[in-house]
Amino acid sequence: MSDLVIRPATPDDIPAIVAMLADDPLGARRESPDDLTPYHRALDRLVEDPNQHLVVAVRDGDRPVGTLQLTVIPGLSRRGATRSVIEAVRVHADERGSGLGTQLIEWAIEQSRCQGCQLIQLTSDATRTDAHRFYERLGFTGSHIGFKLRL
Amino acid sequence: MSDLVIRPATPDDIPAIVAMLADDPLGARRESPDDLTPYHRALDRLVEDPNQHLVVAVRDGDRPVGTLQLTVIPGLSRRGATRSVIEAVRVHADERGSGLGTQLIEWAIEQSRCQGCQLIQLTSDATRTDAHRFYERLGFTGSHIGFKLRL
Repeated sequence: MSDLVIRPATPDDIPAIVAMLADDPLGARRESPDDLTPYHRALDRLVEDPNQHLVVAVRDGDRPVGTLQLTVIPGLSRRGATRSVIEAVRVHADERGSGLGTQLIEWAIEQSRCQGCQLIQLTSDATRTDAHRFYERLGFTGSHIGFKLRL
Repeated sequence: MSDLVIRPATPDDIPAIVAMLADDPLGARRESPDDLTPYHRALDRLVEDPNQHLVVAVRDGDRPVGTLQLTVIPGLSRRGATRSVIEAVRVHADERGSGLGTQLIEWAIEQSRCQGCQLIQLTSDATRTDAHRFYERLGFTGSHIGFKLRL
């Protein structure tokens, strides 16, 4: 289990990433593993944008076992602070409890520091109580309410 | 009060924007209105990035009375959905209760639709209970916990 590599996602990773997004109580209703076209289109946009970092964690050569997306957001508030936002964290079912989630978030924290971010943030559905304990153990504070509106 | 215009922020707007960021119970401790250098540097980064929309609402010719930052984030989850994130919403003290906050958020919703976003999201400090009611009135659901970690 020591050969983990975290690297930028490529089009070849899309089936594995979408399978991980869909293998989730909330994600199951929202994804379409049988039609990958919209995911390829989205990856094209992500790859063009230097502030987007969609990564996969791979083991055993090149088998994807985890993913997350990190977005770097410059801004004026907090004395012109740059922040980063973590979205779409997923760990393959076979790897849960292995510490891979921690490695992914630690990668995101380190990458955010390298990008000059002063703050890292994410939202987690209020029903994911295990995830909340996980982020608190990693030093995050659940100080905010996350509001969403579907368009 | 009918001459409101919402337009991209320019370097000339920085003193007014920073004054609004600082005139806030939480913002007061975090901003440096006496040293605008980091804010100018941040605006340079925002202007370069087509996914960033820092705007000011102006009245009476060109007097800034409100501001927000909208960030467009492509992504793989939710069938390759693009989302937008609202940050740093501020309304000048003289304008509170005038409906300007609503106009700013409605602008962000409309702009997000134009940019092809399927979801718009924001976080609000858990202590800002008036803001929570405001976002709920505008159709947002406070379904998530917002976690932050200072780097």
